[in-house]
Amino acid sequence: MGLVVQKYGGSSVADAEGIKRVAKRIVEAKKNGNQVVVVVSAMGDTTDELIDLAEQVSPMPAGREFDMLLTAGERISMALLAMAIKNLGHEAQSFTGSQAGVITDSVHNKARIIDVTPGRIRESLDKGNIAIVAGFQGVSQDKKDITTLGRGGSDTTAVALAAALDAEVCEIYTDVDGVFTADPRVVKKAKKIDWISFEDMLELAASGSKVLLHRCVEYARRYNIPIHVRSSFSGLQGTWVSSEPIGDKQVEQAIISGVAHDTSEAKITVVGVPDKPGEAAAIFRTIADAEINIDMVVQNVSAASTGLTDISFTLPKTEGRKAIDALERNRSGIGFDSLRYDDQIGKISLVGAGMKTNPGVTASFFEALSDAGVNIELISTSEIRISVVTRKDDVPEAVRAVHTAFGLDSDSDEAVVYGGTGR
Amino acid sequence: MGLVVQKYGGSSVADAEGIKRVAKRIVEAKKNGNQVVVVVSAMGDTTDELIDLAEQVSPMPAGREFDMLLTAGERISMALLAMAIKNLGHEAQSFTGSQAGVITDSVHNKARIIDVTPGRIRESLDKGNIAIVAGFQGVSQDKKDITTLGRGGSDTTAVALAAALDAEVCEIYTDVDGVFTADPRVVKKAKKIDWISFEDMLELAASGSKVLLHRCVEYARRYNIPIHVRSSFSGLQGTWVSSEPIGDKQVEQAIISGVAHDTSEAKITVVGVPDKPGEAAAIFRTIADAEINIDMVVQNVSAASTGLTDISFTLPKTEGRKAIDALERNRSGIGFDSLRYDDQIGKISLVGAGMKTNPGVTASFFEALSDAGVNIELISTSEIRISVVTRKDDVPEAVRAVHTAFGLDSDSDEAVVYGGTGR
Repeated sequence: MGLVVQKYGGSSVADAEGIKRVAKRIVEAKKNGNQVVVVVSAMGDTTDELIDLAEQVSPMPAGREFDMLLTAGERISMALLAMAIKNLGHEAQSFTGSQAGVITDSVHNKARIIDVTPGRIRESLDKGNIAIVAGFQGVSQDKKDITTLGRGGSDTTAVALAAALDAEVCEIYTDVDGVFTADPRVVKKAKKIDWISFEDMLELAASGSKVLLHRCVEYARRYNIPIHVRSSFSGLQGTWVSSEPIGDKQVEQAIISGVAHDTSEAKITVVGVPDKPGEAAAIFRTIADAEINIDMVVQNVSAASTGLTDISFTLPKTEGRKAIDALERNRSGIGFDSLRYDDQIGKISLVGAGMKTNPGVTASFFEALSDAGVNIELISTSEIRISVVTRKDDVPEAVRAVHTAFGLDSDSDEAVVYGGTGR
Repeated sequence: MGLVVQKYGGSSVADAEGIKRVAKRIVEAKKNGNQVVVVVSAMGDTTDELIDLAEQVSPMPAGREFDMLLTAGERISMALLAMAIKNLGHEAQSFTGSQAGVITDSVHNKARIIDVTPGRIRESLDKGNIAIVAGFQGVSQDKKDITTLGRGGSDTTAVALAAALDAEVCEIYTDVDGVFTADPRVVKKAKKIDWISFEDMLELAASGSKVLLHRCVEYARRYNIPIHVRSSFSGLQGTWVSSEPIGDKQVEQAIISGVAHDTSEAKITVVGVPDKPGEAAAIFRTIADAEINIDMVVQNVSAASTGLTDISFTLPKTEGRKAIDALERNRSGIGFDSLRYDDQIGKISLVGAGMKTNPGVTASFFEALSDAGVNIELISTSEIRISVVTRKDDVPEAVRAVHTAFGLDSDSDEAVVYGGTGR
């Protein structure tokens, strides 16, 4: 008998009907002879409503109490789901993150899982129950306080439990049919990917694909847990993410897995930086001390006449204000003329392990962009990814052009529904 | 420095404004030099909304999961309250029932507190924090499952914590100014009671007064914890409930504490019961086996010609169907002709320790009812209470008549707001 971990996002359990539909699907998996552990997110907009309430009572909600508040959301969805399953004649028990043994560090609002001790889950499964676990939450090792894992945390809970319970697969149910070769809202002819390696999935996630978060894929790769991303609305096979193709499915590794894009970043240019050792370090230490993660960095060739250069980097728009403030505060220490802030940029990335052995990929990528009349502002590459920054308005056309140029278009327009994946 | 436990009901924290208002009041108590523990109910209608959701997914929500669901309500209110307090510049930490050490038996939906081990609360108080505790919930001793205490459970949580922490007082904040000599919605001239003994309060609670529940007063009496029932909206002194009047307040024990009424009960009459030993036992064993609590019982004089008698008893209307079914199932075992069910009854009770030494009270009570043209159907008495059952429609007039007859009317019409007390 196999053990399956299933995760359902907020959109799958948005209302009583959704919960009953999901309950049926869970019972099917159980009837197929599996032990079933279910990780569930908060219903629909519950989390946003709770955040809204918190902001009404306090402009800066505090970490510990904010986590206590938000975890009420999963408590509701998991209890309702257990009831709905019992109503179908099967035994189910719900467990908070703490009860499920999800042990984290003490960083409230974005805690990291440091251990999973699922003794109560095992016990419940051995009694023949379906175990329902609250996603997104855990308990801190030192203080025994309730913590949350941050955005996409429920996916991480699911993968971590799958690893601790040595599950055969971690099924991530969402409101799309799987991972696509591009965002179907932008590229109508995007195709569902049947199988993708952990490495390519990590690059897609880092490049703007929203279906799975980087952290969750990283965890799955570390413990070699196959992920099956699929729709909770259709009964279709979705996308398998694993080290090797699973089972009798003969899937050839594609040269290119997909095209990702990201319009959530901004670009900061530090103008008139003295071109001498330690300048870049001073800038990025300032940014790092402000706890801001940056993405791409590029330094222009120095103008010989002035001995000054410009350094540009991209970062999440939400961190823009903080970064500008930090740099301004440290202006004398760093030494620069001015700062330019540009939030009208977009990033397009081409991902695929095959590009390592296909030297023509980079050239074809730039040709496709050029043919579409898209100007490139920054370039960054890894072994299996090429990313460029363009004007934000050029992004949809650029993604479509690249998608077509690499032969990723499907033969027919597929009807896909695309939305958020909950958390 | 004293230790004060404050409890706020759902109506006091119904929205963000309410939470902020309550936070200010808590901070005042802290500024007055007290250590403050706050027990809070779920916001406004949260619990009803959760129950509604549960009924949508399952017609018969199960005990364990139902408790898991409902406890989300306090989790939300307590976290928000802690945030609001921090926003006023004071340190606050929220604790679930489990974290606060509220240990119960395993009877889901109506668990009993069997121990309170408030180690974490003590620790938090010693650090100078205000401790916020989720009312209404605990954790079962044997299975470590989340339990709820049933209706009025938050009051019981507050008193139990007050006892475990050896608090000076347990303040129950609600949306009325205190305990009144009668329900102010029925008797406009009802007066707030300044002080009432545990014994009289127990009788009032048992007779339909909704301000404090019987169980909570019982607990307070056992551990001799003074309760101060007061409004979270006004700053007024409310009603003290204790063994003796507190402090420098010279309060004379009133002969009559108040008039309570209850229209939530029904009457079942078992008609044509053989007048022989064991018959009443058979009836009430049947009712007890169905786990139904009954209130008043009366047996008519047997008719000599038939040797048959009738037995009547009252019980909560909500249990009516179950009682009738249980009796019908056991008709042959008990032996009776028929059952009569009457849910158009009401109960009026006069409560006061003074009636022990004032023999005229019973007579005055019946005279007042007679003068008001109210017919008495059943009578039941204790040492400090007289109760009668009348037609439901007669209740308001009967309560007013008795209130006036015993000199309880205030000189002026008081403006009071009266509503539910949350849970």
